[in-house]
Amino acid sequence: MQVERVCIVGLGLMGGSLALALRPFLSHLAIVDTNPDTLIAAKKFADSVTADFAAGVQEADLVILATPVRAILQLLAQLPTARPHGCLVLDLGSTKAAICRAMAQLPPSFQAIGGHPMCGKETAGFAQAEPDLFAGQTFVLCGNGRTTPHVEAVAHEIIEKIGALPLALPSQSHDEMVAAISHLPYLVSAALLQTAAAQDNEQLWLVSASGFRDTTRLAGSAPQMMLDILLTNGTAVINQIETYQNQLIEIKQLLLSGSEQELANRLAKTRQQYLTYRNAKQKR
Amino acid sequence: MQVERVCIVGLGLMGGSLALALRPFLSHLAIVDTNPDTLIAAKKFADSVTADFAAGVQEADLVILATPVRAILQLLAQLPTARPHGCLVLDLGSTKAAICRAMAQLPPSFQAIGGHPMCGKETAGFAQAEPDLFAGQTFVLCGNGRTTPHVEAVAHEIIEKIGALPLALPSQSHDEMVAAISHLPYLVSAALLQTAAAQDNEQLWLVSASGFRDTTRLAGSAPQMMLDILLTNGTAVINQIETYQNQLIEIKQLLLSGSEQELANRLAKTRQQYLTYRNAKQKR
Repeated sequence: MQVERVCIVGLGLMGGSLALALRPFLSHLAIVDTNPDTLIAAKKFADSVTADFAAGVQEADLVILATPVRAILQLLAQLPTARPHGCLVLDLGSTKAAICRAMAQLPPSFQAIGGHPMCGKETAGFAQAEPDLFAGQTFVLCGNGRTTPHVEAVAHEIIEKIGALPLALPSQSHDEMVAAISHLPYLVSAALLQTAAAQDNEQLWLVSASGFRDTTRLAGSAPQMMLDILLTNGTAVINQIETYQNQLIEIKQLLLSGSEQELANRLAKTRQQYLTYRNAKQKR
Repeated sequence: MQVERVCIVGLGLMGGSLALALRPFLSHLAIVDTNPDTLIAAKKFADSVTADFAAGVQEADLVILATPVRAILQLLAQLPTARPHGCLVLDLGSTKAAICRAMAQLPPSFQAIGGHPMCGKETAGFAQAEPDLFAGQTFVLCGNGRTTPHVEAVAHEIIEKIGALPLALPSQSHDEMVAAISHLPYLVSAALLQTAAAQDNEQLWLVSASGFRDTTRLAGSAPQMMLDILLTNGTAVINQIETYQNQLIEIKQLLLSGSEQELANRLAKTRQQYLTYRNAKQKR
């Protein structure tokens, strides 16, 4: 590896999986986490563990920020004091525009790039971490005012080591895209669960099957992570909700008007779009 | 088995899986399907195969209707002519009120009960059929004006043989429940896919991960099956869409007002409801 000493801040599903995947390639791995139990678990494979951010990053060549988005923003603000000589910085936050703006404000001694591995589970925490979480998955990289060829090369080396596939995107484009394929799906999933729960009928869960299970899976996402996402990507998410609401209004109109042929055409088109999406995924 | 000669009409995912699961227990199994390729496949395990409904049912003790809902309604209308001496009737249709009304109109020589196994896949057809599809899944039974203790006992015997779990429900309750846990999820899934497709951005599919895959899986459902479902359960589905729309309006308001505490409370409540639902499923 081009970097020897790495500090990962936040040992949840993402940070933990990255720690496990990168461990064999690093001469020194420091872990920062605020949960004492997580630090005990981290001691088994890390060279140093601490709850103190400044202590954890003090000798790191590369700091990887893997907390929820707004905690990343706070840590970026603390970084110049905690690591006065500067270092490389990568993050794994779920939204990228706010983080990339904050990275661009770092002193010139820092070289920073935004990152977002496009994978996850609805169950969070280090207990769920696994070293092959990223294998075959897209890993978005977002350049900003502090991105240099060196930090970009280091990020690519990490992505290669963990078996992911790099995709460079402007942070604004990333945020608009994830609003459609990640944040809206969460809200849709949550609203679906709440609509069913509003029936207040215990038997409903007995009748529910794999379709309901899969469409509501994201409703189990970690509330703190989702809160930070929604608060840092509000505009794009609201735009997506509105497009989505129009889709629902159209389908409700078709049901109310009872126009069988139009409804049939719409369902057939939906199926066709589904196949297009699945084919695009399989080609990757 | 209390019945020896069974005719299954419609060898798709449901009818095909039931045929494979029941085959060892039947002395004579007749298959009716309109697809010539499906009939060739059915010849390998069935005693007789035909595209002609009247020919298929003529000697059956029990006719199991496993086509899309509106085809079931048509077949029920043809049954008194096709099988003048009467027989037992069970169906596997996705909505139950219209079918149970039609069953109640059969002559008194028929004994009929509505059925709905709560399982499925987004991929339809006999090629996807498997004998253990129903194992451990809820199988709803809906009595009607032609339901007798005998046909009810036969239905329970079938459910036991295929390893499913019976649940008796009034047909109207069934339809209201599946509107919330099956039909709305389909529409939600379809609208989500269309909202993403509206971005018209090929890269979107590369960035999408398992969350999007799972929430849009139902959008791949067979259009003809879904059309029949929506047209025979329109009122309940429209009610669910409206409850759902209100959920979306509320969440959009929270995002627009930027009220962090209220948003946090709502996300935490969502997570709690998700755990309640998952626990109820696991207890079953």
